[in-house]
Amino acid sequence: MEAGKEKLWEKTLGSQPIFDGKIIKVQLDTVELSDGSQAKREIVRHPGAVAVLALRGDKLLVVEQFRQPLGRTEIEIPAGKLEPGEDPREAAARELEEETGYQAPELIHLSSFYTSPGFADEIIHFYAAENLTEGTLNPDDDEFLELTEITLDEAFEHIRAGRISDAKTLMAVYAWQIRQLTGKWPL
Amino acid sequence: MEAGKEKLWEKTLGSQPIFDGKIIKVQLDTVELSDGSQAKREIVRHPGAVAVLALRGDKLLVVEQFRQPLGRTEIEIPAGKLEPGEDPREAAARELEEETGYQAPELIHLSSFYTSPGFADEIIHFYAAENLTEGTLNPDDDEFLELTEITLDEAFEHIRAGRISDAKTLMAVYAWQIRQLTGKWPL
Repeated sequence: MEAGKEKLWEKTLGSQPIFDGKIIKVQLDTVELSDGSQAKREIVRHPGAVAVLALRGDKLLVVEQFRQPLGRTEIEIPAGKLEPGEDPREAAARELEEETGYQAPELIHLSSFYTSPGFADEIIHFYAAENLTEGTLNPDDDEFLELTEITLDEAFEHIRAGRISDAKTLMAVYAWQIRQLTGKWPL
Repeated sequence: MEAGKEKLWEKTLGSQPIFDGKIIKVQLDTVELSDGSQAKREIVRHPGAVAVLALRGDKLLVVEQFRQPLGRTEIEIPAGKLEPGEDPREAAARELEEETGYQAPELIHLSSFYTSPGFADEIIHFYAAENLTEGTLNPDDDEFLELTEITLDEAFEHIRAGRISDAKTLMAVYAWQIRQLTGKWPL
């Protein structure tokens, strides 16, 4: 149904808790639409995350890891969940160092985006970093990672081969190409 | 923990169903890691979706709609869930026409990406379309949308203002800028 802007609202009538996990919470909301009808909304609550497009010269730092929802490994930019109360920029610096062993003199905020606003409130705070210096590698205990560095051409090869196949990393590759073409980050 | 590639696996020991919704399913997996330890993985199963970067001349078609997980409206590119057994390209053509009223002579597959591979298997099949022709507007019954067309500059204004703030739409804006800068889609 097309609508004027005044019809673009939903009113929460109720919210049924379904699952309270270590990372996600799931709830089933009942909403009233602007035509008076009701609908159900299945919603995943997530603590939010950070991701870092980190460049060493003309190479992008990426980590390969197993992703249980996909049943296989993927090559992604460094990323991780926000700790409770943690500042996103500090979390980005922490995840970058934990997963790659590098520190960034500056983290440039490129965007903060919702990964899947139809059913989840997960937000990723997305930063770019250059001129990295050596720090200390320290991944989480239940996280096995392999760190590598790739060129822009290699990144597109990985995309075509399906080894890079997640939203934040694709977005990072596009942002990096824009940076190379224009000399500026897309902001 | 850093690791060689031979350590990048997880073996599923068990999977506990949590929620079987109309759109998502939630399960709690127990996995064995390569060091012999066990971990829990909270997983959301999703039917998959399609999204279309649709251009009318130098303008991008976008729809504003209420997103209950965020509690507000967002401006996004046309998108929607796959029906069971539906071909992604046909779904993209269907969603484009339902939400915008336009048909595309060709849908160019830009990528298929996972929105949040840490906890969900949702995949978005992402297409570009140009040279649109008039079709029939027909959104879903519980979907209120407002269709508009925006320039690339307006898209970046919406990003800076937080009105465009989801992964697929940001990615579309970046892909569109690359198209403008290079004359080619990023493939």
